[in-house]
Amino acid sequence: MTPITLKDIELARETLKVEIDTTPLFHSRSCSDLIGTDVFLKLENQQKTGSFKIRGAFNKIASLTEAEKSVGVVAASAGNHAQGVALAASLAGATSHIVMPKNSPTIKIQSTQAYGAQVTLHGEIYDEAFKYAFKLAQERGQTFIHPYKDPKVIAGQGTIGLELLDEIHNLDSIVVPIGGGGLISGVGLAIKTLRPSCKVYGVVAKQASGMKNLFHQEKVDHSLSFPSIADGISVKEPSLEMYNTYIKQYVDDVVAVDEDEIAEALVFLLERTKHVVEGSGAVTLAAVARKKWDLGKKCALVVSGGNIDLNLVSKVIERGLSKNGRLARVYLAVEDRPGTLTRITKAMGENDANILDIYHDRLSPNLRLRETVLNILFEAKGPEHLKSVLESLEQAGGRIIR
Amino acid sequence: MTPITLKDIELARETLKVEIDTTPLFHSRSCSDLIGTDVFLKLENQQKTGSFKIRGAFNKIASLTEAEKSVGVVAASAGNHAQGVALAASLAGATSHIVMPKNSPTIKIQSTQAYGAQVTLHGEIYDEAFKYAFKLAQERGQTFIHPYKDPKVIAGQGTIGLELLDEIHNLDSIVVPIGGGGLISGVGLAIKTLRPSCKVYGVVAKQASGMKNLFHQEKVDHSLSFPSIADGISVKEPSLEMYNTYIKQYVDDVVAVDEDEIAEALVFLLERTKHVVEGSGAVTLAAVARKKWDLGKKCALVVSGGNIDLNLVSKVIERGLSKNGRLARVYLAVEDRPGTLTRITKAMGENDANILDIYHDRLSPNLRLRETVLNILFEAKGPEHLKSVLESLEQAGGRIIR
Repeated sequence: MTPITLKDIELARETLKVEIDTTPLFHSRSCSDLIGTDVFLKLENQQKTGSFKIRGAFNKIASLTEAEKSVGVVAASAGNHAQGVALAASLAGATSHIVMPKNSPTIKIQSTQAYGAQVTLHGEIYDEAFKYAFKLAQERGQTFIHPYKDPKVIAGQGTIGLELLDEIHNLDSIVVPIGGGGLISGVGLAIKTLRPSCKVYGVVAKQASGMKNLFHQEKVDHSLSFPSIADGISVKEPSLEMYNTYIKQYVDDVVAVDEDEIAEALVFLLERTKHVVEGSGAVTLAAVARKKWDLGKKCALVVSGGNIDLNLVSKVIERGLSKNGRLARVYLAVEDRPGTLTRITKAMGENDANILDIYHDRLSPNLRLRETVLNILFEAKGPEHLKSVLESLEQAGGRIIR
Repeated sequence: MTPITLKDIELARETLKVEIDTTPLFHSRSCSDLIGTDVFLKLENQQKTGSFKIRGAFNKIASLTEAEKSVGVVAASAGNHAQGVALAASLAGATSHIVMPKNSPTIKIQSTQAYGAQVTLHGEIYDEAFKYAFKLAQERGQTFIHPYKDPKVIAGQGTIGLELLDEIHNLDSIVVPIGGGGLISGVGLAIKTLRPSCKVYGVVAKQASGMKNLFHQEKVDHSLSFPSIADGISVKEPSLEMYNTYIKQYVDDVVAVDEDEIAEALVFLLERTKHVVEGSGAVTLAAVARKKWDLGKKCALVVSGGNIDLNLVSKVIERGLSKNGRLARVYLAVEDRPGTLTRITKAMGENDANILDIYHDRLSPNLRLRETVLNILFEAKGPEHLKSVLESLEQAGGRIIR
């Protein structure tokens, strides 16, 4: 792969000008207070299709000849790349065919179709869809749009770096999510060329930390033991080529954040900044909230997208609130006789714990005779308060099972 | 109450300039597509404290003498007015004392305190907190900050109208939530004075539709049978004074939206515009999505706040998705023998219905012998698809209980 230069990113910006949005840059008071430095959110969740992916896709498709456009483009994706390629193709006057894994969420399939793509469901996992799409493109002579390993795609994503430096001349640090690495490669190149003193940090999900392993010369962990909240950056196999060509050169550090950290950051963004962000968009805040980086006085976080499944939002909220001691579920073994429930709920009321849901479970294992289990979901005010509520439950005669 | 004039609102704008934000105006493609005209969202969820309330509170407190400021201000509120007064007082150099009903959410109590207020919990409902705060102010010679029935407060909220007309000169219509009526009074006065051709529409929650009743000379329904998702505008008793002084004069129509409509709008804003909005902020979109108003070419929706309890978000998401046929829970009576579950799940899989949760309930009432109940939560693609899935469940031998 020929490495791109700043010139390519500047040309991409010209190409993107008419159809693709310059996204808002948002100075967040609450994030600044949390981190202790001025934090700006680059809101790619407000980009067309809800993520930055359309930048690279549009730059690539706009570079094709009329003949290539009419033969069409092919891509494989279960998420943002699918929607980005679909709309980019429609805007650039090309036909598109997207291969999505069979288990893709209905809403993503529907919106990819709504953006004008033909959708084929194939394979159980992304890799199978990818191989099938690649084969399809070869057989039909169509252009395969790789999600990151493509100079035009990388140049398109790099336009975010130019927009940022236009608005904040004296930027000290920027934090970027890493999936395949296309985004951080383009942005890193733009930033390090125009403002070498600005730090560029990358963040992977712990569940898919291949690029972090490469960066720190660790053994690459190929196991994706369960799906991450940050599904958009869950790339199984890190690209050595992306690492050698760009990331090694333009990135100062790469860290991994775990699921709880991502959930907590996502909940913070929802509750405090009022922005809906997908898991991979929240990893940047998750990283600066925990890691000890030199962020300087002005730090930009790339919030890469906002396409989160609403059914997942509920689960993430529960997880994020649990993590900071504001929501708890307790399984409490109590004596199975009249008056017990009153004693327990009274103890909670006196401790200002707000019960959201409570039910009896008489069939639970590990029960002694004449015991029943109360499954209680309640709100607390934080870790300290939570601890005191649990103690009061024990004092009221309950036995905490888990 | 002396009616205010445009001059008062212009003065308020000067007063607010340093401490209170000019909020972003956001052209929403997805809302525009939904409504069929250009829709702009005035994002008061991005205002300091997460709602417009601080505008009026700051304008009021800034008008006090130094002596009055040092004696302090008092307010009653379970929500945005509490936080608005608390921070406005701190910014204007006054002390504040906020009375909140005992059942106020912990997070709101904590943030009101964090903004610098002394908080007293009193009363089971808002009315009791209000009376207590009023008495307290009289006893101590402190200034009571009414949430809407105050010229300075109304003038402060009216600054939103000026900001809107600055950005959209040829605005054709504006839609504003109505609780007590302070917001629509100030905004309506500003708009109708500067651009009389612009329509001003108000929206109440059906659960608290007193001002709509007054407007249409209907019998006022005082019953608040259950709490509304739009708790911020659930005002039990409409103010005849606000109606006579402002609303009658500056408002073209008032409609009520029900809980399902609010939930659906809130989910649309979350999912499509990526903005977190509270129930009372979503009523404006809910109204234009259903009502037949003359909105012209450019319509502004005031999104009044974003302070929604995250535990409520999950419930609203479920309700909003159910309402548009994308999420369903079915109680299915089936034969209690091996193979049944396979038959049912196979039928669902073949129909592309994605099962989220499923459990057996053998203790359900209304069961015939040898029947058990499957409680199934699943995703569908919309009302038509949902109907076909339910039919396939019946064909597979299930009996839909509800």
